[in-house]
Parts: sequence; structure tokens; C-alpha cells
Amino acid sequence: MSGYGSLKEQAWKANVELPQTGLVVHTFGNVSAIDRELGAVAIKPSGIPYAHLRVEDIVVVDLQGKLLEGSLRPSSDVKTHVHLYRTFPDIGGIVHTHSRYATAWAQAMKPIPILGTTHADLCPGEIPCTKVMSDAAVRRDYEEETGEQIVTTFRSRSYEETPMVLVACHGPFAWGRTAEQALYHAVMLEEIARLALLTLQVNPRVPRLKKTLIQKHFQRKHGPDAYYGQRHEGSKGATRR
Amino acid sequence: MSGYGSLKEQAWKANVELPQTGLVVHTFGNVSAIDRELGAVAIKPSGIPYAHLRVEDIVVVDLQGKLLEGSLRPSSDVKTHVHLYRTFPDIGGIVHTHSRYATAWAQAMKPIPILGTTHADLCPGEIPCTKVMSDAAVRRDYEEETGEQIVTTFRSRSYEETPMVLVACHGPFAWGRTAEQALYHAVMLEEIARLALLTLQVNPRVPRLKKTLIQKHFQRKHGPDAYYGQRHEGSKGATRR
Amino acid sequence: MSGYGSLKEQAWKANVELPQTGLVVHTFGNVSAIDRELGAVAIKPSGIPYAHLRVEDIVVVDLQGKLLEGSLRPSSDVKTHVHLYRTFPDIGGIVHTHSRYATAWAQAMKPIPILGTTHADLCPGEIPCTKVMSDAAVRRDYEEETGEQIVTTFRSRSYEETPMVLVACHGPFAWGRTAEQALYHAVMLEEIARLALLTLQVNPRVPRLKKTLIQKHFQRKHGPDAYYGQRHEGSKGATRR
Amino acid sequence: MSGYGSLKEQAWKANVELPQTGLVVHTFGNVSAIDRELGAVAIKPSGIPYAHLRVEDIVVVDLQGKLLEGSLRPSSDVKTHVHLYRTFPDIGGIVHTHSRYATAWAQAMKPIPILGTTHADLCPGEIPCTKVMSDAAVRRDYEEETGEQIVTTFRSRSYEETPMVLVACHGPFAWGRTAEQALYHAVMLEEIARLALLTLQVNPRVPRLKKTLIQKHFQRKHGPDAYYGQRHEGSKGATRR
Repeated sequence: MSGYGSLKEQAWKANVELPQTGLVVHTFGNVSAIDRELGAVAIKPSGIPYAHLRVEDIVVVDLQGKLLEGSLRPSSDVKTHVHLYRTFPDIGGIVHTHSRYATAWAQAMKPIPILGTTHADLCPGEIPCTKVMSDAAVRRDYEEETGEQIVTTFRSRSYEETPMVLVACHGPFAWGRTAEQALYHAVMLEEIARLALLTLQVNPRVPRLKKTLIQKHFQRKHGPDAYYGQRHEGSKGATRR
Repeated sequence: MSGYGSLKEQAWKANVELPQTGLVVHTFGNVSAIDRELGAVAIKPSGIPYAHLRVEDIVVVDLQGKLLEGSLRPSSDVKTHVHLYRTFPDIGGIVHTHSRYATAWAQAMKPIPILGTTHADLCPGEIPCTKVMSDAAVRRDYEEETGEQIVTTFRSRSYEETPMVLVACHGPFAWGRTAEQALYHAVMLEEIARLALLTLQVNPRVPRLKKTLIQKHFQRKHGPDAYYGQRHEGSKGATRR
Repeated sequence: MSGYGSLKEQAWKANVELPQTGLVVHTFGNVSAIDRELGAVAIKPSGIPYAHLRVEDIVVVDLQGKLLEGSLRPSSDVKTHVHLYRTFPDIGGIVHTHSRYATAWAQAMKPIPILGTTHADLCPGEIPCTKVMSDAAVRRDYEEETGEQIVTTFRSRSYEETPMVLVACHGPFAWGRTAEQALYHAVMLEEIARLALLTLQVNPRVPRLKKTLIQKHFQRKHGPDAYYGQRHEGSKGATRR
Repeated sequence: MSGYGSLKEQAWKANVELPQTGLVVHTFGNVSAIDRELGAVAIKPSGIPYAHLRVEDIVVVDLQGKLLEGSLRPSSDVKTHVHLYRTFPDIGGIVHTHSRYATAWAQAMKPIPILGTTHADLCPGEIPCTKVMSDAAVRRDYEEETGEQIVTTFRSRSYEETPMVLVACHGPFAWGRTAEQALYHAVMLEEIARLALLTLQVNPRVPRLKKTLIQKHFQRKHGPDAYYGQRHEGSKGATRR
């Protein structure tokens, strides 16, 4: 028994749940989890169908992406994952999917505007979209640079308040304090992306949600005086099971 | 055994049915039921997944929202529910969801126009949308004021003929003589919201349904001479099981 | 045992299959079947959920809609059904639904244009939409007049070649040589309605399918030289099970 | 036991999987597989529901479409299939469906533009749409000419890099080295067709994906240095099960 058993179990569980959320087609999506004390990241192997995935297939790498355990190749997006873990110290899990509505917004190169309280329950502003990657960056180290694109987008934003992003022309990444919470954020992002498109189809000139409503809804779930859910956790009460 | 057993059972049953309707994602939705003789309202606890909900988790409050029975916190929307029960004397159940199409219309801040007989079978005019809440009201007592917004919208309308509303920027509320009927109204509201958007996508300049057709369809289900369904109940024959 | 057993069984089976097609919400849809020799029409009772429907609940009426057998009220649309059976001598079953995309076109008061070979496989031209009923007709005898609206629409058309119609502001009716075939036509109508809307969303200025392609596809399934399917039935080979 | 047992099994398996992909309604879709050594093509019989299909129902024809084995009529599209097998030497399976979004683009007579990396993972450019068939060709030999239309479209393109096409006014065909891979391509084509429409609904003026990103994504899955998936197969690593 390796010392990564519990971490691999956590990553395996979240990857296996992924297709049940309806967010992925075939093998297009992956979840990772980190153990900060061990400096180890557990991630889905590349191109393996979820239905066949076993705990022992999960690949473990260090924060530079170097293999620590596993006989399979990690997800081709592994460098993006470790780049985010290195830069965002408080995240414990990352999910990448090509979920339909979030991917449509990413391909459209548009941030998702905040149009209602369902969105404000999750985060207090638009879901940002990265810039399109430069040709030089694509050629340099594509997956590493995808991480860098995301990090740049969060220079002027809190990655904790907005635990998700659209990578232009590509698709969404979401994160959280755990892999399970990251998965919850990926599900809600897809829902919000869908609601936003429908809303604009009903009324293309609808204004953004006003600040008092954003603050009210975000605070009642995430602020120090949050009163949604059963326990005072400071934030993210909605993700408990 | 408390005296609220049957009421809690009713509220529990409707909450558990909620995810089967496809109207909710995660814990974003709640149902309540009232026993007018006991002056007691049974409602879903906040942030508990439907799959884990037990009858004993249901929270009972009085018409001011004061706890009567239960060890969990009630839904954060409880004040909206009791406000509606206090003001609409003939309702027995309330459902709140973030169902996709109804929420899209609510976020678009548009009433749902009456475009066909499916809508007229349910209610005899547009589904109204509240005004956006003032900043002062948001800060005062948000959930109470949400109830007040709804009540104001029904000043010039019958809450019995139109048992549902869109809260601007937020989502739908539906009610009925029982929690089960409220759930039926929430399902039909979502269907009508979806049909209306599709209809406008086919023909953006379609006129409203004409009055004679509205009256004919509404009366054949709800009027004193209703002939839809098997029994003369005066109204709402369609909801029997 | 009544003499209507086999007819009721046929109608019951098709009504029970209806919700499995995804075409109906709650009790909003009905199927009937006729036995021309007996002059008897078997139809769903009004407002009874499909899941609870038993063969003995099926109501039998004559071609004027007069009760022949059954203890429940027939569907409120029964007069429309018998009107069509009286006027279209070669049909054996009728289906009425409020299926989403067909209803959207009906509410939009637009015929469904023929845009592709999937449509031409089914019928050789647009799916017609009736005119909106006059106020006088609504007040006279609504369900009877709905039948009359449909019949008028087919004055200049073959009800055998185009076994379906949109009733303006209301929804679709489909028919066939049997109740089962009518159900097949209702399913394909919904599919065609959906494809047509999507096609126009991709390209709003797309032309109608050209005549040679319409004829080719319709003839290979329905003409005297049809070569789709396994047997030469003259038409509708696709509906065999 | 005939010598076609294994080939028929392969074609049967892919046809039976077809309805599980959600790509087909009723019997509107077919898969074939070829054994190049035997010069034999196994294909679905015409108009038989997938649920009732048995291995022995699969029809075997030669590369001119002449019957080699089977008691049922082959799919009416058989001449299109054999035309493609004759012209594209490296394909082993073909899938034809009327899947919704791909058919909408085909009916709209528009190629699917390349708008994101999900598309570039599959093929390095737009999904082409054939020209509309001339009246003379329709009358000459419709299914043969459908094959010819497709072949003409690939005069200036690699059928290996872009293993799929939209037949104008009709629907999609996809192919692959095996029937199973063809099925995978049909599923991904539908997903890409859907993503492209949603993307244009979010942003009608979105530019095409830039070349460096197309090349990067296509090469990481299909080039000589592909690093997606577990094995170096040269291409199509994503389709392994």
C-alpha cells in the first residue's frame, strides 16, 4: 500500500461521478485532487473511459508534474492542473470538462454575465473568460500556458470567490477546497451558463444583476453571517452532502 | 408523536418528489405545506439534499416563521413562504424552484405571455413578473420583502386564478390548495415557460391568444361548468392522481 | 365480456405508450382507435394519469360521440376525434398531444416548412397549420369545431399523404391506419418540428427542399415502387415493429 | 456457419449500440462494416427496429452492392455505403444517422465551422457539407449519387483527417477504421454540431479557431507525436475502449 491511497480514492471517486453529472461526452473531462502535505496530485489517466477506471489507474504526480506513482500516462491537461495548484494555495481539487453550455460561452470568447440570483448564490460577478493564447505560447508549452492564462485572468480577481473560469476557445475549469466541491462548482457553472443563454434569448437587452442583490445572495451563502444551510462554515454551505 | 406528523409527511413527500420533476439542481428548491387549523407551516430544512431528507428533518414554524418543531434550520426562504400563507388565505402549499425556463423569464424580467391553450388550461392570462426589489427593501428583510413583492404583484390579480409568479432576477414561486397541487403548478409553469420561448423563436411577432380561446380553455377546466376530468370539483380537475 | 375488448385493448396500449414517447406532460394527450365495422371509437377517459390507466377505463363511444360503454367521462377532445373519423374514412387511430416543438409551431401559427429528407420520408410537403378559430365557432361547439378546422385545412390536401396537422394556438393531431401508426406519426412530427426550428436557427434564409428530392424520398417509402423496409405494403413501411 | 460470422457480429454490435447513443429516432440510421479481404460489406437490413435486430438479420453484400448472404433487404442506403468503401480505401466502417444537430446543419446547407478545441481534437477544419444534388442525379441513381456527392466533396480534402460529412438537405455520414470508430465519430460530430450552434447563439460574430490552436489540438491526438491517451497508435487514441 502506497501512501497515496486516500488521495487516489478521492480523485477516483470524483472522476467516476463526472459522467453522472452529464457534463462529459466520452473521455473529455478530468478531475484531480491534491494532498498539500504530501505535495502530491492525483489525476485521471489520459483517454481512459470512466466506466473502466479503477482506483489503481489514478496517476500521482508532484507539483511539477513529475510522476510519483502509477503505470499510466496522466491526463494531457496535467500541467494545467499543477500550475493552478502551485498558484492557488487554497484549492484542493480541480475539474476540467467540455460541458455544453460553458464550452459554448468559452468558444464564443465571452464571460458569462451575472443575470440572476442563482449565479450570485455561487459567485459575486461574471464568470471570466481568458484571452486567446498567443501563437508563441501555444508553441512553447501549451498545457502549462493554459494554466498561466487562467492565473493571469485572476490577477485582479479572487479565485476563492469565483472558483471557475472559461478558457477561451476551449472550455471550463472549476476548482474548490476539495475535488467534490470542484465538481459541484462545475455542475453549477454549466447550469448558470445555460440559464444565461436562455435569459438572453428571452430578453437580449437585460441588464446585469444589481449590486445589492449580488451582495445579498452571495453573503447569505458565503459571508461571515451566512445563513443558508445548516452549519456555519464561513462559506460554501451548499455543497455538503 | 407530535401533532404535526401528517403535515410533515405531506411536506416531506412533496419535497422528495421535487427532484423527480427535473425542476431542481442540487438543493435549489423547496416545498412547504400549511395546516391552517394548527397555524403550522412545514418546510424543507435549508441545504439538505433531497435524497437524504427524512420526515423528521422537516421543520415546522408558525405563521410568523417562529420554530414550532425541528432541530434543523428551515429553508432560508421560509419568511417568503409564511408571508404568502398570511396573505393568500386559500393556499395550502407553496413551491419555490430555480427551474430553467421559468428562471430564464424571471432573470429576463419579463412576464410569460399567454400564447396557447396549454397556458390557458392553467391560468387565464400572462404569468406576472414582480418588479426588481429596491435596495432599501433588500437591506431591510430580504426574504420577507420577496413575499411582499409577490403580494404587491397580485393586488390587481387573482392569486387563485394565477397560482404562480416570477420573482424578477430570481425565479418562480407556485402555490395551490395543497403542496401536491403547488408542485403540479410548478411543473406546468416550467412547461409553459419553455413553450413560450420556443414559440417566440419560431415567430417573434406572434400575437397573444385571443380572449374567447382563453376563456373557453380556462372555463372547461376551472369554471363552474368545467367538463375536463372526471369529477366536478369546481376547478383544477387536472391535478388528481 | 363486451364486444369492444380488442378495440379497448388497442386504445389502452397506445395511450399507455404515449408517455414513453416523451410527447406528453401529465395527462395532456390522448389516443383513440376505431372499429369501423362496429362503428365504435375507444378513447382515453378525461384527466386520468397514464400510469393508472386500466383497459376497463377506456371509454367507447359511437361516431356521434354517444357513450356505448364505460363508466368514466371520455377525453374532452372526443368530439374532435369522432369528427375526424366521420370525415377521413381510411384512418383507424388518432393521437393528440401538446408535444413541445409541434406545439411551439402551432402556437406560432406557422406551418412547418419542408426542409429536409427526414420530413420528406414522412410526408411530401409542409405540415399545415389551421386558421385561428372564429369567436362564433369557439362559442358554438369548441371541440366539434376543432375537428371542422382540421377538415377544412385538408380540403385541398390528402389526409393520407400528410397524416398530421397543427391546430393554431393549440397543438398537433396525428392519425394513421392504426392507433400505433398514429403514434408513430406523432413522434415523427415532433422530431420534424424540432429539426425545422434548429435548421432555421442555423440558417434563417434556407430554401424549401426541392421537388425532386421530396418526390424521391416520399416515393421510396410510400409509392407503389417503395423500396424502404422489408415488405411491399404500398406505404408506411417504416412503422412496422 | 458462413465465413461472414465475425463481420456480421461487428456490424450487428454497432447497429445495436446506435440507439443507445441517442443519435437515432425509430429506424432512421444504419451502420455497416467491411472485410476488405473477403470483399464483403455487412449492413443493417432496411426498416428493422434496433431492439429486434439479430446477428442473422445482418445483410452481406459485395462492393457493388450485390447480395452475398441474408434473407432481408439491405438498408436503402447500401449503395452509398459501398460507393464510399470503393473510393476510400482505408475505412472499415460507416455510420449514417439523422442525428438532430448534425441534420440541422445539413438541412441548413452549411458546413460546421471550427470554433473550439473540442472540434480540433476530432478534425483539423470545418465539417464540410455537400452541394445539393442535381435533379438529373436524383433521378439517375439516388443512393449511388449520394455516395458520389460525398466523394466529390473530399476531392480537395483528406477523408482520413475529416472522417465525416454533411449531405445537404439530408444528414450526416461518418466513417472510421472500424464500425466502432465510425460510431464514435458520429457521436462526436453530433456534439460538435450542437456546440457550434450554441456558440453562435452566444456570439454570432465569433471568429474561426486560429491555426496554431487547431494544429496543436489535432496533433496532440492524431499526429506522429500524439500524447493524448495511453498508447502510440499514430492517431485516434481517443476511441479506444
